[in-house]
Amino acid sequence: KLKEELEDIHEVNISEILKLLDSKEALLIYRLLSKDIAAEVFSYLDPDDQEKLINGFTDVEIKDLIEELYWDDMIDLIEEMPASIVKKILKNSNAENRKLINHFLNYPEDSAGSLMTIEYISLYPEMTVKESLDYIRSVGNEKETIYTSYILDKGKKLLGTVSLKELILAEPNIKVKEIANEDVISVYTTDDQELIAEVFKKYDLITVPVIDKEGRMVGIITIDDIVDVIEEETTEDIQKMAAITPLEEKYLDIGPIEMAKKRIPWLAILMISASLTSAVISRYESILAQMTVLSSFMPLLSGTSGNAGSQVSALIIRGLSLGNIKLKDLYKVIWNEFRTSIIIGIVLAIINFFRLYYLEIALVGNPEKFRISLLVSISLMFTIIMSKIVGGILPIAVKSIKLDPALMASPLLTTIIDVMSLIVYFNLVHFFFNI
Amino acid sequence: KLKEELEDIHEVNISEILKLLDSKEALLIYRLLSKDIAAEVFSYLDPDDQEKLINGFTDVEIKDLIEELYWDDMIDLIEEMPASIVKKILKNSNAENRKLINHFLNYPEDSAGSLMTIEYISLYPEMTVKESLDYIRSVGNEKETIYTSYILDKGKKLLGTVSLKELILAEPNIKVKEIANEDVISVYTTDDQELIAEVFKKYDLITVPVIDKEGRMVGIITIDDIVDVIEEETTEDIQKMAAITPLEEKYLDIGPIEMAKKRIPWLAILMISASLTSAVISRYESILAQMTVLSSFMPLLSGTSGNAGSQVSALIIRGLSLGNIKLKDLYKVIWNEFRTSIIIGIVLAIINFFRLYYLEIALVGNPEKFRISLLVSISLMFTIIMSKIVGGILPIAVKSIKLDPALMASPLLTTIIDVMSLIVYFNLVHFFFNI
Ligand SMILES: [Mg+2]
Ligand SMILES: [Mg+2]
Ligand SMILES: [Mg+2]
Ligand SMILES: [Mg+2]
Ligand SMILES: [Mg+2]
Ligand SMILES: [Mg+2]
Ligand SMILES: [Mg+2]
Ligand SMILES: [Mg+2]
Ligand SMILES: [Mg+2]
Ligand SMILES: [Mg+2]
Ligand SMILES: [Mg+2]
Ligand SMILES: [Mg+2]
Ligand SMILES: [Mg+2]
Repeated sequence: KLKEELEDIHEVNISEILKLLDSKEALLIYRLLSKDIAAEVFSYLDPDDQEKLINGFTDVEIKDLIEELYWDDMIDLIEEMPASIVKKILKNSNAENRKLINHFLNYPEDSAGSLMTIEYISLYPEMTVKESLDYIRSVGNEKETIYTSYILDKGKKLLGTVSLKELILAEPNIKVKEIANEDVISVYTTDDQELIAEVFKKYDLITVPVIDKEGRMVGIITIDDIVDVIEEETTEDIQKMAAITPLEEKYLDIGPIEMAKKRIPWLAILMISASLTSAVISRYESILAQMTVLSSFMPLLSGTSGNAGSQVSALIIRGLSLGNIKLKDLYKVIWNEFRTSIIIGIVLAIINFFRLYYLEIALVGNPEKFRISLLVSISLMFTIIMSKIVGGILPIAVKSIKLDPALMASPLLTTIIDVMSLIVYFNLVHFFFNI
Repeated sequence: KLKEELEDIHEVNISEILKLLDSKEALLIYRLLSKDIAAEVFSYLDPDDQEKLINGFTDVEIKDLIEELYWDDMIDLIEEMPASIVKKILKNSNAENRKLINHFLNYPEDSAGSLMTIEYISLYPEMTVKESLDYIRSVGNEKETIYTSYILDKGKKLLGTVSLKELILAEPNIKVKEIANEDVISVYTTDDQELIAEVFKKYDLITVPVIDKEGRMVGIITIDDIVDVIEEETTEDIQKMAAITPLEEKYLDIGPIEMAKKRIPWLAILMISASLTSAVISRYESILAQMTVLSSFMPLLSGTSGNAGSQVSALIIRGLSLGNIKLKDLYKVIWNEFRTSIIIGIVLAIINFFRLYYLEIALVGNPEKFRISLLVSISLMFTIIMSKIVGGILPIAVKSIKLDPALMASPLLTTIIDVMSLIVYFNLVHFFFNI
């Protein structure tokens, strides 16, 4: 009965049930599934749940699993499992597959090679449409997709593609080479996954063929894995923007020591660069000693200009990574930010002036209330303008020297802006009060 | 000759060429394209380039365009174009389509209704596999996808789906209802696009059927549009995290006034809340007056603890939006951050102590150098621990009251942390120096 009920549940949801069970129970349920469903359920599990389950597998079960798993999911599995399990998997593979596995394990992480799978349909150019459809019928069940077929010559060079739609709409007796699309968008095994995701987005693809450096077709990449890449790359960018070395796993799966390692380096760098700020302040210590009230406005200035700058850097970093902003747009960005920041600077300076003059407790009864309010507000205006422009330039400059612009987000930028805004502030203090 | 050359260029790339041309030249090239290619090229243009082109169209060209465009792209077009062009489009549509257009324009933005298209294949349950394949052959050319067919009853209720793969692998004479998959994952017209993207990601879908509130199937959503949704939603999150009201257009397409409007509100709120910081500082002004050197370390403290807190909030916000972190994980998050922050706090405090004691210019020759270095480093440790925990709690708390956690990112958080860290600092000063 349970077996019948399981048949009505989607594989993804069965995998979610298995996650909640202990390894014994999970194995019990797993064994009720048919081979192909079982493999699909397995491919949706996280590595730790996969390990939990695979530890209880017999050799036959391992053999069944690796026969049914798509190649890309099997390689991912081998990459994640401890040596003892990998050994078990290799023992249950034939010599040819072991060789191919080794080949795939050598593709660099984040490359097309590490994303592709090998279950695609290849046709010869001389096959007729009917022969092709018959062939697709005979092997279709084991393929990741049958909706695009790849026409290869004897040397595995990709001559063109033909979609199942074209095949079923075509005359049965013509040769597939006559209806092939010859301008095929393809990627190389060594291409980075970020680039591949851009190709998918630009051309609205569902699959893309992968070509090795000898020009032979070796696999296909499918959109579901690209969707995961897009999420992963964005997560990486967000982590970098928050000054964290990108995490390899999900937040809840990382222990405190590992987590601290990912965060300490950047925090330490930022902390040490913040000492520049202390140096600036101590340079002007005599001014602060004469008018201590001035130190109350330092956080307001550096906070507001820091936020003003990060607003820009976040937009530019995202625009660069989506390809909406290019290096050549630098001057447009500066010009945009110059105009925008003047508007923002003036508006905020006015708001700030009235707030200081009428509401600021620190200035109550101060004989210089008017001049201090004016001074702080004008400083604010200048630092906002400077911050916005710097926030626009930095990510582009960093990208132009081939570093990741995400590193120039808020934290590092605000350290720079902190120093700048304090220098502007103290110089204006000097100008206003001649101290 | 140009016409032949254009045939070899991918539609996406033709659209990129058109963007570079002025409207006259673009129209000239556009007219060399066959109707269906032309419509596809058109659908890849940005709204402003579409407008540029459509202004020069004859009525016939408009008619051809709206006949060939997929329904979702046509609705998007109508939503973006000025009234005069919309009028032209409606004039060239028949009465039935005009009614349907009006219906579609009423779906809320960001809902399934606004993403779906109507060019899908529907079959009756009693059709045989052969009849279905013949029908698909006859209408396949106009459909967005022919790889999934939807089996509907007379009342348009969705009974199941059948894939083209299943159809071509099946016996020609059996009825489609016998091979239908009945557990269909579907969405409602009113579902939000973020939820729909999650469904696509969870089940690795290529298309999903959309059901209206009467239970009738009204359209399908395809993965290419979902990929755009994913990018759009993440961009929105990044903008919110940087304290910007989400932009409707690309960065380079927004004028300075519009841009200022998106940035001023949050900056003003943050600026005004920063006055809390001034209030705290002015409360302790007498301490600063006695030991001005202490003010040099305020930016270090608030900067480092601000960064420490944003590291956490960025991780939590991203985890919440990917679904890896749930509201119920609050205590896990607190416990994780408590342990992580103790490690980080101790490490940074030690680094900071030695830097201050041996390298800090502001402390050279200061008789209290040791005690001040110790005081600042201990403050740093406490504020890091507090910031990390607050950075973990806030986004979850905000989500639990149904607000967007992205709003609790770095800027607002750092304002809160600023105040907290200064209070800790001055209390420790009081404890160390009894002033
Ligand atoms: Mg892989
Ligand atoms: Mg990468
Ligand atoms: Mg696209
Ligand atoms: Mg895959
Ligand atoms: Mg997969
Ligand atoms: Mg990246
Ligand atoms: Mg389309
Ligand atoms: Mg729409
Ligand atoms: Mg939304
Ligand atoms: Mg997925
Ligand atoms: Mg579409
Ligand atoms: Mg589209
Ligand atoms: Mg959102």
